Amino acid sequence: MRTSLATSAAKFSKVLALLLALPLLAQAAEPLPSWNDGPSKKSIIEFVQTVTKPDSKSFVKPEERIAVFDNDGTLWSEQPGYFEELFAFDEIRRLAPQHPEWKDQQPFKAVLENDHKALAEGGMEGLLKIFMASHAGLTTDQFRNNVQAWVSKARHPTTGKPYTEMVYQPMLEVLQYLREQGFKTYIVSGGDTGFMRVFAEEVYGIPPEQVIGSTFVTEYQNQDGKPSILRTAKIAHNDDGPGKPVSIDSVIGRRPILAFGNSDGDRQMLEWTAAATGPRLMGLVHHTDAKREWAYDKDSKIGRLDKALDQAKQQGWTIVDMASEWRRIYPFEAAAPVNPQ
Amino acid sequence: MRTSLATSAAKFSKVLALLLALPLLAQAAEPLPSWNDGPSKKSIIEFVQTVTKPDSKSFVKPEERIAVFDNDGTLWSEQPGYFEELFAFDEIRRLAPQHPEWKDQQPFKAVLENDHKALAEGGMEGLLKIFMASHAGLTTDQFRNNVQAWVSKARHPTTGKPYTEMVYQPMLEVLQYLREQGFKTYIVSGGDTGFMRVFAEEVYGIPPEQVIGSTFVTEYQNQDGKPSILRTAKIAHNDDGPGKPVSIDSVIGRRPILAFGNSDGDRQMLEWTAAATGPRLMGLVHHTDAKREWAYDKDSKIGRLDKALDQAKQQGWTIVDMASEWRRIYPFEAAAPVNPQ
Repeated sequence: MRTSLATSAAKFSKVLALLLALPLLAQAAEPLPSWNDGPSKKSIIEFVQTVTKPDSKSFVKPEERIAVFDNDGTLWSEQPGYFEELFAFDEIRRLAPQHPEWKDQQPFKAVLENDHKALAEGGMEGLLKIFMASHAGLTTDQFRNNVQAWVSKARHPTTGKPYTEMVYQPMLEVLQYLREQGFKTYIVSGGDTGFMRVFAEEVYGIPPEQVIGSTFVTEYQNQDGKPSILRTAKIAHNDDGPGKPVSIDSVIGRRPILAFGNSDGDRQMLEWTAAATGPRLMGLVHHTDAKREWAYDKDSKIGRLDKALDQAKQQGWTIVDMASEWRRIYPFEAAAPVNPQ
Repeated sequence: MRTSLATSAAKFSKVLALLLALPLLAQAAEPLPSWNDGPSKKSIIEFVQTVTKPDSKSFVKPEERIAVFDNDGTLWSEQPGYFEELFAFDEIRRLAPQHPEWKDQQPFKAVLENDHKALAEGGMEGLLKIFMASHAGLTTDQFRNNVQAWVSKARHPTTGKPYTEMVYQPMLEVLQYLREQGFKTYIVSGGDTGFMRVFAEEVYGIPPEQVIGSTFVTEYQNQDGKPSILRTAKIAHNDDGPGKPVSIDSVIGRRPILAFGNSDGDRQMLEWTAAATGPRLMGLVHHTDAKREWAYDKDSKIGRLDKALDQAKQQGWTIVDMASEWRRIYPFEAAAPVNPQ
């Protein structure tokens, strides 16, 4: 009997060990398969191991593993224009029949006539009018429905792909890898919060409550017992530049230990992440691939990367060279061979 | 050999079944032990079962199980004054040596002289000045340190207990029960977000990113490479009344399926929660226990419960009668026998 019990116990231990090892085995698959074995992949994996290994001196408790990501140019493309801007233009075209006056009114006339010169002349003020006409004066439910309808049928002007497929496969892998390692992943972007929430959960695996962006002042209203929330034509928060650490502090209330951006609008977010004790990872996606994506930095109007690039070099932040470090850009592409030279 | 293998397999199945059953066994302990078997306990448990049982027609996916709770008067006491107001008064006393002019200046003079009449005469305007002097013009880090120092040593004027012990044991059990059942629990309160975040994780098990409250406009600043976030003397959001559904929509981006409050300031939050399809639970803590806590509703200046009580009765919301439904109020008390009549 004793022997039999001991054998059972031994078997039980083995079974238990096997069961407990399952999650570890699952994690053992090589992370970041769409990344070449370059300096960025190395720095990401080394950082994650440093903060997650229980015996590490720099171990960070799971609840403090906050990772923040810009969206435009960091998680998805932003050329030939910010995708949300292209949505706003499409909305103006869709709404034009209800606004016959737009035919003779700038900046709407420029959008309807596809007049890039007039649109550029309208500057930020014109753009703001287009944003107000497409993003404000409706309830949050109505806005979500509009974005949903657009996302499902709009196509990118040069690739012909749905915008939600023009996301960076290597960054999707970073998001997933971090979550597997106990991180909470957030979007912190200049885009409209309500706009991004429509697709962030499905596309990035980031739930609505982890999407932080620019916001309009909203108002609670209750008509005949049917409450709704109105997006007024007043901007509440511009989630760009110094607005990013502000919203991180306000919404998350913890300092991130990892931050990824791609432009000067992300500089303060990275700086804020860097300026705390303990291990930190600050990353910049550098758009260097004119062939597979777009190549731009210091002189670009969209996603200008100038000061932040200098600061990244000075302070040793991780700069991702898209052209050489990414085996593929989009999920719909085949991966290039490892480390093509 | 066959028999032996079969026996091993059978043993393995048993072990596996036992291992898999462990979480279920843990859950099987009777929830809400500090609640009498009254209508509120029944409605909470029935609601949770309705939305969590996989075969339920009204099953709600875990990511959509959002539960929101007011803080003052719902999770902790709010008498003889809102605890954060008492913190503000203590801060004025602490800072007085640096402000000799306060000796002759209202409303500060009233605080320093403990002159309730003069304080009442100062009204909201006076109170706002006290809040600005204690809550603004300092960095978020400094403010957190101040609150931490206060929380660790301040004592409630009538019970002599730390404020963080004057939390409702029955509500702590509701929070824990909901989280065990896959809910995400949030605070949505008129209190200052940064104030509540100092103790919410330790006391309620609610992490900073799930604490929503009133906020000041903050500004990012960077002096000599040391970035910080300044709380300016301008209110950004008043998280009371209609401000609650607004912040829920802005920060969470999902409609809660359970909301708990105790005053008219929670009316719109409960109404917003109620006005969606699918099962919902709207609860009000009714302060009926003058002996063990305080008894107040329609005529109270603090935590007035008037319109919301009428609406709750009309619409069949859950009204918790503290005196009869709670076996104890605070964690430091012994529980009363079950259902004393």
